[in-house]
Amino acid sequence: MDLERVLRAFDLSFNSEVETFVHRKTGIPITLWYDAQGEELNLIDQTKLPYELEVWKTKDWREAAINGIKGMIVRGSQAIGCTGAYCMVLAINQFAGKASEGAIEHLFKAAEEIKSTRPTAVNLSWAVDRVFNETKKSIQSGDGTDIHSVVKKAADDIFVEDLLINRELRKNGSEYINDGDVIITHCNAGSLATSYGGSALSILEESYSNGKDIVVVPKETRPRNQGFKLSVWELTRCNIPTIVITDNMVSSSLNTYGVNKILVGADRITKDGAVANKIGTLDLAKISSFSKIPFYVGASYSTLDLSLTGDRIPIEERDWHEMTAFYNYEAKVRRELGDLSTDAQVQWPELKRITDRTKPSHGEVKLFNPAFDVTPPSLISLIILDIGSFSPSEISTLTGDEVSRRITRIVSSKP
Amino acid sequence: MDLERVLRAFDLSFNSEVETFVHRKTGIPITLWYDAQGEELNLIDQTKLPYELEVWKTKDWREAAINGIKGMIVRGSQAIGCTGAYCMVLAINQFAGKASEGAIEHLFKAAEEIKSTRPTAVNLSWAVDRVFNETKKSIQSGDGTDIHSVVKKAADDIFVEDLLINRELRKNGSEYINDGDVIITHCNAGSLATSYGGSALSILEESYSNGKDIVVVPKETRPRNQGFKLSVWELTRCNIPTIVITDNMVSSSLNTYGVNKILVGADRITKDGAVANKIGTLDLAKISSFSKIPFYVGASYSTLDLSLTGDRIPIEERDWHEMTAFYNYEAKVRRELGDLSTDAQVQWPELKRITDRTKPSHGEVKLFNPAFDVTPPSLISLIILDIGSFSPSEISTLTGDEVSRRITRIVSSKP
Repeated sequence: MDLERVLRAFDLSFNSEVETFVHRKTGIPITLWYDAQGEELNLIDQTKLPYELEVWKTKDWREAAINGIKGMIVRGSQAIGCTGAYCMVLAINQFAGKASEGAIEHLFKAAEEIKSTRPTAVNLSWAVDRVFNETKKSIQSGDGTDIHSVVKKAADDIFVEDLLINRELRKNGSEYINDGDVIITHCNAGSLATSYGGSALSILEESYSNGKDIVVVPKETRPRNQGFKLSVWELTRCNIPTIVITDNMVSSSLNTYGVNKILVGADRITKDGAVANKIGTLDLAKISSFSKIPFYVGASYSTLDLSLTGDRIPIEERDWHEMTAFYNYEAKVRRELGDLSTDAQVQWPELKRITDRTKPSHGEVKLFNPAFDVTPPSLISLIILDIGSFSPSEISTLTGDEVSRRITRIVSSKP
Repeated sequence: MDLERVLRAFDLSFNSEVETFVHRKTGIPITLWYDAQGEELNLIDQTKLPYELEVWKTKDWREAAINGIKGMIVRGSQAIGCTGAYCMVLAINQFAGKASEGAIEHLFKAAEEIKSTRPTAVNLSWAVDRVFNETKKSIQSGDGTDIHSVVKKAADDIFVEDLLINRELRKNGSEYINDGDVIITHCNAGSLATSYGGSALSILEESYSNGKDIVVVPKETRPRNQGFKLSVWELTRCNIPTIVITDNMVSSSLNTYGVNKILVGADRITKDGAVANKIGTLDLAKISSFSKIPFYVGASYSTLDLSLTGDRIPIEERDWHEMTAFYNYEAKVRRELGDLSTDAQVQWPELKRITDRTKPSHGEVKLFNPAFDVTPPSLISLIILDIGSFSPSEISTLTGDEVSRRITRIVSSKP
């Protein structure tokens, strides 16, 4: 497959200034790409955004898995899936032996290690397993195809399918975006979480770059600030009029700017139409319900989990350092400036106070840091997926077969 | 007046380690005090909290006004009022002349300059004018009292009355706090905003230090982070079990920790029972209403503004640098660590993008930073004041005379 030709079909062409492929209309680069000639994986380094745009490169599968995926140079379920697939390409590139038996064993071990870097990322396992299984099948069939081509084709297929799926989501979502809309978004459910142009924010980027007169209001999204950092970065690439708010300014922005829609992404959509998403989504949904603002979810079919209901999702708690990082930075800079004395503490709250226990006791401080929350179907107006748009109650009527049929139709369409 | 004796009556005694007066039970220091022997004003430096506890001292009235009040070493309406009164004491200390006529002119000019440092702070004007008028009256009466004693007594009266009023608020508020309560608070409506022990958070500090088994859940309160910095600092001084959350974790903390009350402060309470308070209060009130959690306001009578209704309050917008400060700190530290390159930008969003216009246009980013919002009476369960507790609708029946009668009773009680 000629990657450049495929990308061109999606309006993405190589921009030598930023050293990656950039969309002609939105100005947003692809999140990752595999350079077949240099045998190198390229990732936009998301840990450095928004301060600098750097493309991180590696030829080593383990480095890609550990620094790239686990180190969160790449993030977002779809982007991680594609990256995992290309880790397998790097792995077979680095296989020195000739015997296909040994190659399969080598790939199997690499696959296990790659998957373990983000064990809860369903898309990562799915993509890595798919590459492995297709390779194994091809070799077992004995059709003599070169193993490198088989692995490469399997990874490319996943990448191109992701582009196709995202295009469909943008198309479906654009129907609900109109001239004059002022739309609050949460976290970065955007292009950077996918190969290119997927997730909720991309719907707005597509709409604006096609001439719709909208204003986007990204929420900061503490404690990791993906709204302030990544969404604002995407929106400025796209030149969309943007009003940045902190997480506690929702009502104020409704009153002052006439916000008329809310659009968020999803980590998981359960069979009852509940949506697990970045912490703060539920607060936002309650405020929108109180103030009668329509609440939309935009996501890929791959977030569907038709095996359980929303109330059964366990809530992961993340490291409290995420909450205190800003305060440590502030204290360090102010110590250097002489604004704080050299013995001022840089860890706040004090380390000896912090407890990991569920509930703190006398003198203890708990830094509560849930990764996401679950919004019940009653607070959701519409769930916009690549495979179509659904009311929360319609999700319960979806079957796995129906989802597969719709996906097959999308991924077999022309780039 | 012997300050030490008065403070002892409030359970506050000098602690040489922190060089100020500290409450025996809560462990919280007084926010400011005037050292009559050294002729020096002492302020807890709130710009350095929570990183270090430092007492800032000055003998110069202009320095106290400009660095102390305008520079926000002291903040919170009641604390600013008391500080303004003592600025007048410093001003008369610095008056070289003998003629009482010249002294009054000197005080008048000082008063105008002190009041101009925070022109919208109603308490500051009120306190400074009161000191000036009482001094002028005494001199005009020709009773021969030393002008220094008159100014000092007027300032001390304001300080002690603030202590008396705060004690009454704590007493009124404690009635609504029970064993087992888990209470969300917003911003720092606490002791640090008053002489000592006033505003909403002090109610909880009093309750805990008197043996009530409670957990307090302070919200970070972006963009100035007074919840994370000042409230957590007060709560740890007092050893109260504390669960810190960012502003978008309200629903999650309800679900996980069984929050059963919300208690916030007030900047202004209007005649219809609406409450203007730190940005985010309205979001919190809507969530609490949705989730049927009682929503309490705790504040001083001095926040009452019976001249207008909540919808008439103009919303002040603050400097956008407040929102971006943390990102600049992060970029600076990471550049020094080599984690970002030396030419990575430290200002995010880029300066050339930022607009001050009400609504941004193509390529522009507006950083919306409203200082406060207005919560309608329908979302408020109870307004707890020093002069009594009221439903929002009862506020409309309060007259200025009735407020004065109640205040007179409180400030004429024994310390």
